[in-house]
Amino acid sequence: MKPRLYTPGPTPVPEQVNLKIIEPVIHHRTKEFRDLFARIQSELQYVFQTQEDVFVLASSGTGAMEAAVANCLSRSDRALTIEGGKFGERWGELCEAYGIAVHRYKLGSGRSCKPKELEELLRRDPGYDAIFLTHCETSTSGVLDLQAVAEVIHRNSTALIVVDGITSVGVLPMKMDEWGIDVVVSASQKAFRCPTGLAFIACSEKAWAAVESSDLPRYYFDMRKMKGSLANQNTPFTPATSLLFGLDEALKMMHDEGIGNIWEKHRMLGAAFRSAVESLGLEIFSENPSDSLTAIKIPDSLLEQNLVRLLKDKGCVVAGGQGELKNRIFRISHMGYCNADDLSAVLSALEEVLISCGWSVKPGMAAAKFQQMLTSDSGNA
Amino acid sequence: MKPRLYTPGPTPVPEQVNLKIIEPVIHHRTKEFRDLFARIQSELQYVFQTQEDVFVLASSGTGAMEAAVANCLSRSDRALTIEGGKFGERWGELCEAYGIAVHRYKLGSGRSCKPKELEELLRRDPGYDAIFLTHCETSTSGVLDLQAVAEVIHRNSTALIVVDGITSVGVLPMKMDEWGIDVVVSASQKAFRCPTGLAFIACSEKAWAAVESSDLPRYYFDMRKMKGSLANQNTPFTPATSLLFGLDEALKMMHDEGIGNIWEKHRMLGAAFRSAVESLGLEIFSENPSDSLTAIKIPDSLLEQNLVRLLKDKGCVVAGGQGELKNRIFRISHMGYCNADDLSAVLSALEEVLISCGWSVKPGMAAAKFQQMLTSDSGNA
Repeated sequence: MKPRLYTPGPTPVPEQVNLKIIEPVIHHRTKEFRDLFARIQSELQYVFQTQEDVFVLASSGTGAMEAAVANCLSRSDRALTIEGGKFGERWGELCEAYGIAVHRYKLGSGRSCKPKELEELLRRDPGYDAIFLTHCETSTSGVLDLQAVAEVIHRNSTALIVVDGITSVGVLPMKMDEWGIDVVVSASQKAFRCPTGLAFIACSEKAWAAVESSDLPRYYFDMRKMKGSLANQNTPFTPATSLLFGLDEALKMMHDEGIGNIWEKHRMLGAAFRSAVESLGLEIFSENPSDSLTAIKIPDSLLEQNLVRLLKDKGCVVAGGQGELKNRIFRISHMGYCNADDLSAVLSALEEVLISCGWSVKPGMAAAKFQQMLTSDSGNA
Repeated sequence: MKPRLYTPGPTPVPEQVNLKIIEPVIHHRTKEFRDLFARIQSELQYVFQTQEDVFVLASSGTGAMEAAVANCLSRSDRALTIEGGKFGERWGELCEAYGIAVHRYKLGSGRSCKPKELEELLRRDPGYDAIFLTHCETSTSGVLDLQAVAEVIHRNSTALIVVDGITSVGVLPMKMDEWGIDVVVSASQKAFRCPTGLAFIACSEKAWAAVESSDLPRYYFDMRKMKGSLANQNTPFTPATSLLFGLDEALKMMHDEGIGNIWEKHRMLGAAFRSAVESLGLEIFSENPSDSLTAIKIPDSLLEQNLVRLLKDKGCVVAGGQGELKNRIFRISHMGYCNADDLSAVLSALEEVLISCGWSVKPGMAAAKFQQMLTSDSGNA
């Protein structure tokens, strides 16, 4: 059994990244570290498409989400969270943990926030201090049209726009400065081809004003401390240096590939993969599916089968649904260090599993559909 | 030039730990992960000498310190911090960041808190809700007699005893349960032979009562969430899985060596190393030096020399002083994956550097003294 990882985080780590991770340990208050840190800083700005500083935290992505809340809000602020699944809900929970008055707007499961829907919300109440969005909701694979949503917010409100880009930055087009996004957070184990353990956060000038005036308690995630240390190409607290070595290599790979090419690759892979899944008679879960991962409905007749387990027995580790979506969907990632051949492999495994469950499939159909789609798409491009 | 790392964190990582770190990525909501997590749990309890749960955070040690403050205190609480250097001050800064009324008791630099001194403090004011201690103050190498200090606190106060064990757990004797310590925090890159990026925290039953009733805001570091997930051998947020693979291997090594043997090894190495340093005519900085690292005063006549740089040119990476101790001391670690031969190597390098600076030393003196001390100590033992 040859294992292959298709979970929507962690994603596979290239060997050249792993080899950097285990280079001899260095101390973090040295010129070697400062040079590493400066390179990472500049490459992260490229991936985030921002001129702002991008800070690297030793934490999971949730740590960067908490940093956004604890630094950019103050006790008397009002927040709006748009919640389309487990990770949107996390914004709401974080605001509540800090005692913030928060309007938690719940989308139906699998739904994405439409610009028009948000516009109506803001016309009724434009006075939010910050709006928390989830670019790609990993629990449903729902994606929002971030550029259009940001335009709507700019037209109707002065709120800070805070975006969970954990499974979007480095996969989907993200133009932080051009689109006027105030805060973007992400994490290492998704598009960034690294192990878990690092998170990223970048803030606009407008967001920095909120950081400076915030009266919420914070220390480890205090962005003022991070900014102070950044002037010396360093971190306020001990960084996860070995992971930074890996990140440095991964960012070099991403730079060489070109961020525009990466976005286009994932667009093509996502579209072709969904067509191939549908050609098997399966249904895509989300109304507006992301190119980061595909969430697939488990057909009623297969509810008794454990598709995730059967795929794992063939070596393909995919993710099930979370919370209320448990046993209703399964999710296959195409983020990060993933190419067309990886997706052909999992499509073949999925076909075999479906056939073993008595599902009517002509062998090779999905992989053929996938290749046809890719060919015609790149022909059009 | 052959590099050797003697900084008091990070410390060298064994090759077998590194090889585990880059094993194929696994997803963290799986049986494989739960098995890994359960093993780590049990081995950390052994190293902390506790029956309580030991939680692993994806953060630096400061994250675990923040978890201690944000979970174990409430808004109206009063705290006492004993500050003998940069890391003691961190407890005070953390309490202030959360708006806690804190008595920041400052020891002179290089001084350690004597049990009697603390007793006088507590007789004047026994009403603290928590007392924050630093077992080994890494910035000065000062160590406190934790067992005696804990006894004094138990006799005079009902305060929670919270201990920064970042450079003590796994080096110095630490008997959390037997000594009645309520909270112990530590981190991966010190005694635990791992890269930076993981922190640990354990709480007594008494501390858990404070956690449950705390009204301070917290989310990523919320210990109630950690406890909830632990029941399923998991973490509330994405763990730093690759580092956990390494930690699993490092803990196995520590188990095989035996925690009592590790404590005794470091006691012998520390004593012999300090004698050898003194035989060179150098002075130990702290009045009560730890066996985790040695802080050495830079002699007045060598202040113009950059000893740290000269040692680095010979391959030996040691640490300078921090803050007001910059250019006054340098620090050599003997924590973690370090044995007598590593210390012979750095003593030889130090001798060579001193001789090159015109310091009067007979070549080979320090290494000879070191070996004599080790031989007579183990003969006595």
